[in-house]
Amino acid sequence: MMIEQPKMSALSEQVESMVEWLASHGGDGQGGVTRLLYDPSWRSAQKAIEAKMNELGLLPRYDDVGNLFGRLAGRDPQADVVLTGSHVDTVTGGGKYDGAYGIVAGLIAVDYLKTHYGPPLKPIEVVSLCEEEGSRFPLTYWGSGSITGAKNREAAVGVEDSAGVSLEEAMCEAGFGFGLHPRPERRDLECFIELHIEQGEVLERENKSIGLVSHIVGQRRYDITVYGESNHAGTTPMQWRRDALLTAAELIRVVINRAKADDEGLVATVGRMDVKPNVGNVIPREVTFSLDVRHGEAERIHAFCEECFREFEKLATEQGTNIEIHQWMDEPPVAMDRALGKTAEEIMEKEGVSFKKMTSGAGHDSQVFGTFCPTALLFVPSRGGISHSPAEFTKTEDLERGVRLLIDLLYKVAY
Amino acid sequence: MMIEQPKMSALSEQVESMVEWLASHGGDGQGGVTRLLYDPSWRSAQKAIEAKMNELGLLPRYDDVGNLFGRLAGRDPQADVVLTGSHVDTVTGGGKYDGAYGIVAGLIAVDYLKTHYGPPLKPIEVVSLCEEEGSRFPLTYWGSGSITGAKNREAAVGVEDSAGVSLEEAMCEAGFGFGLHPRPERRDLECFIELHIEQGEVLERENKSIGLVSHIVGQRRYDITVYGESNHAGTTPMQWRRDALLTAAELIRVVINRAKADDEGLVATVGRMDVKPNVGNVIPREVTFSLDVRHGEAERIHAFCEECFREFEKLATEQGTNIEIHQWMDEPPVAMDRALGKTAEEIMEKEGVSFKKMTSGAGHDSQVFGTFCPTALLFVPSRGGISHSPAEFTKTEDLERGVRLLIDLLYKVAY
Repeated sequence: MMIEQPKMSALSEQVESMVEWLASHGGDGQGGVTRLLYDPSWRSAQKAIEAKMNELGLLPRYDDVGNLFGRLAGRDPQADVVLTGSHVDTVTGGGKYDGAYGIVAGLIAVDYLKTHYGPPLKPIEVVSLCEEEGSRFPLTYWGSGSITGAKNREAAVGVEDSAGVSLEEAMCEAGFGFGLHPRPERRDLECFIELHIEQGEVLERENKSIGLVSHIVGQRRYDITVYGESNHAGTTPMQWRRDALLTAAELIRVVINRAKADDEGLVATVGRMDVKPNVGNVIPREVTFSLDVRHGEAERIHAFCEECFREFEKLATEQGTNIEIHQWMDEPPVAMDRALGKTAEEIMEKEGVSFKKMTSGAGHDSQVFGTFCPTALLFVPSRGGISHSPAEFTKTEDLERGVRLLIDLLYKVAY
Repeated sequence: MMIEQPKMSALSEQVESMVEWLASHGGDGQGGVTRLLYDPSWRSAQKAIEAKMNELGLLPRYDDVGNLFGRLAGRDPQADVVLTGSHVDTVTGGGKYDGAYGIVAGLIAVDYLKTHYGPPLKPIEVVSLCEEEGSRFPLTYWGSGSITGAKNREAAVGVEDSAGVSLEEAMCEAGFGFGLHPRPERRDLECFIELHIEQGEVLERENKSIGLVSHIVGQRRYDITVYGESNHAGTTPMQWRRDALLTAAELIRVVINRAKADDEGLVATVGRMDVKPNVGNVIPREVTFSLDVRHGEAERIHAFCEECFREFEKLATEQGTNIEIHQWMDEPPVAMDRALGKTAEEIMEKEGVSFKKMTSGAGHDSQVFGTFCPTALLFVPSRGGISHSPAEFTKTEDLERGVRLLIDLLYKVAY
């Protein structure tokens, strides 16, 4: 059947006001939002969402790590749960939309469906995932990982924030981790649908309303150290130098220029560099730089890195320096569900919504769910691609278009 | 007349023991020495040198900034002073030889001359210059500059150490700056002769005993800032990036490789680099790096920098980044005295001492004296070129050869 079109104006107002409402928890009054896992702002936001779920007639429930679910019961008692939502935590001084938009959109969509179509066949739950960013503790996807079993309590042992508070302590202080709530692992998920801001500017530049994600890219991260020899800048002739920074400059040039010439979907970034001793009149003896390589196919990442590292070795040998390549991350690409993607595509074609099939270069909870249950990840545009900043912004019409797509998709899947 | 050869063994012992003696003031017991201007170690060293001057029959005298002179009176009451010595201050955790060797050598040489030949025609003074390194206060050549008038009390106004103590305060606390001692300016200098360790490895690599310095190189220092745009490492395709670190890498490569291909005497160093925000998964928006360029001819430095900067602008334009070039030092080369150099050369040829005419890539008090009075700067080898480190080392035979040359040169000039 053809579902009724929600009124533009009412939905627009609702999404605008609920984005502001959620941003007021942890908001700095200047557009910046900080909700770090288990901190007072985080607790205040989860309490407010819990109250909102009650208000909307969704049965709220926490799990024992602090994920919050609001359930709309289904007519089929055997059916697994259709889950939608995103993460409630933010980076320090983040924006209003990252994570929050997916929760707000889920609440609005399920409220809309309930109001217009009554109870679904399959239960729908809106989730406010407790943690994705890794901003307070050096641990990401604590919320989604606890649900899928990718993360457990052992993973949190010894994990501390910068003030030396352990994740365990912080969790207990927030009222979780005691077994007062159900264990986080779920075995009853039919699928997960996440609506998120793009955090890039592909959609804006290409003037598309929705990004339909086929893969979340795989990524490798390395620390590469070049060892040379420190010497006096004035008394060491050029031909005797073993300048670690010169070698590093050559390597960076190689890797970035190779990435530019590679497959369009490949990105390589050197974002961090530390020079020792980092004194103007001393030839650097040691330089460490980061390397972050991403692509939708693991083989392409592998081949790219191998080619670069062969050239690295050659260049270092020519310059009399040594290099050490330390890999500390190797996350494979994660495919989103084809059937869910196809359904979303059909809806957008029918509704005349402009969309782009794309990979996600950033990590999302969907990559954790993606290896566990059928998962869809949908993007709305981010102005200027800006994210993790108070300047993060998505136009109301784009926010609304995302909510409408979510309504239609949840209807197709759950009713 | 042919002067009598000093006994090898006696001189060797004397120079060895006096290097250790001076290093014991501010020594850390592990070979490292720290004597910062006016600090307790510095005061202890100057007091010890004062006592040693008395012991050797040289009349000690401080000036009002803390330079210490030991005078051997001359027979000609009208004659100007032949000055020799070096600086008593060190870097933090420096070696035993930098500066100290020139003072020790001066004391031994004048003692030797006095003992063997009696009073000279012209007065000879050995100077322990109060400050050269700029290790405690951001001010270099405070000692020599005060003598020549290149530095005065106004230059010290507002100059503070890292603990917020002003140079004025520190000077007064050490007993100087009150007018209790004569003003530091001198108008009675015939010449200045400085014996110093090379702090480079040219002499060692070329197996020469003495470096005869023709010029102290000029140097320019710059801070170069590249402005690009920060963006997410995962969501920003390569072709849209304005990566400040990539541009910086290209510029560094240009300047260092051009320096390698340039005149043998030219050195260019990028020793310091600061990346913003310096996070592995964020494209750098701003990179600042230092550039230090040195050569014996000001024109060559100028031409080299102009050529590099033209290429810098071209590269930045190609990459859509902007650069800002801030010059904060432009010291011209300083020529050492040809006649003194010729005299030293004749002595070494006669004695069969292997030597190399060279420029000094490092700064020395001789560059301050060099524009004020005829000046000679003589180097002895530094093992491995290492300096400003407890590993600083010069073989006893090289130390002795330097002292012997100083004896001969002072004899030629003052007797």
